[in-house]
Amino acid sequence: MQLLKDRILKDGKCIGTDILKVDSFLNHQIDVALVAEIGREFARLFAGLGVNKILTIEASGIPMAYATAHAMGDLPLVFAKKTTPNTMTDGVYSAEVRSFTKGTVSHVIVNQNYLGPDDTVLLIDDFLAHGEAASGLAEICRKAGAKCVGLGAVIEKKHQGGAEKLRKQGLKVESLAVITSLADGKIEFDN
Amino acid sequence: MQLLKDRILKDGKCIGTDILKVDSFLNHQIDVALVAEIGREFARLFAGLGVNKILTIEASGIPMAYATAHAMGDLPLVFAKKTTPNTMTDGVYSAEVRSFTKGTVSHVIVNQNYLGPDDTVLLIDDFLAHGEAASGLAEICRKAGAKCVGLGAVIEKKHQGGAEKLRKQGLKVESLAVITSLADGKIEFDN
Repeated sequence: MQLLKDRILKDGKCIGTDILKVDSFLNHQIDVALVAEIGREFARLFAGLGVNKILTIEASGIPMAYATAHAMGDLPLVFAKKTTPNTMTDGVYSAEVRSFTKGTVSHVIVNQNYLGPDDTVLLIDDFLAHGEAASGLAEICRKAGAKCVGLGAVIEKKHQGGAEKLRKQGLKVESLAVITSLADGKIEFDN
Repeated sequence: MQLLKDRILKDGKCIGTDILKVDSFLNHQIDVALVAEIGREFARLFAGLGVNKILTIEASGIPMAYATAHAMGDLPLVFAKKTTPNTMTDGVYSAEVRSFTKGTVSHVIVNQNYLGPDDTVLLIDDFLAHGEAASGLAEICRKAGAKCVGLGAVIEKKHQGGAEKLRKQGLKVESLAVITSLADGKIEFDN
């Protein structure tokens, strides 16, 4: 998605060789028009697969997941939570998700009422790095008996291997900007 | 907003006398069409005030804040973060926010690059209870030199007093459903 790649080159910042900071337009301050366009692109890429629910993890995946749900005809959107709030009294499906960026392991949960065998799920997230978050969400779908068709990632860091791992699990993976290197403070795309 | 009140009566659940659970359509599973309508209603209620930025707190305020930003002409949306991720290297504005529901105190931050004297800010959140979250966001606006014009809350629990506190600070407060009591498992609105 050229609009996105241009924006990453203009406003993205490399931190070391692993982290791309895009918080001026994607995951702290949000360019709503850009994210709406991202939602329309995911809707196009995952059309015809029978998707009837969008699943993401709080918090930074929510804007693009919302935009995708809207672009696919106002599908229900579920965001997995990272802790158990005390208002969540019913049973939950859970998975562990490691964040390499933050050096943490989160317990990610979805209420059992909101995911089940009737659901054909598309995962949406802002970043695809090692694939830990998406693997955790796919695991939650399996536990719920839901079909998980794929992952739409806004930015993939290809050199961290997540897409390959997810494709081996049978997921269709579509990333709107695929980064091959962040070495020497320079952002390189795969095409 | 009648559509919202009807939905709360249909799908909301009381937990004790203080907590209204709406996670089937508002803050875990999201009814995207309803949230889009909520965004349009906030855009109508806060029109003509010169708002040029929407501010919320992760995570459950993000969908309605995004919808409002979109309905107001794709304004930039900023969501305050509850912890400092290691990709946030620049200076931040911060405030403490107590959650009565969760029994926690969060350190809420906004990067200094994304809020400043040129901004006229509208706060959006899913719930208004004691007003702690909105007060924290208003404090962050003051620290940034930004003008904070008001708060749009999807659901206000009037008996917890937050709206009155915020109005005394000079904020315009608009809540789309105002609840006066959750006693005996019965949801009562103020009109």
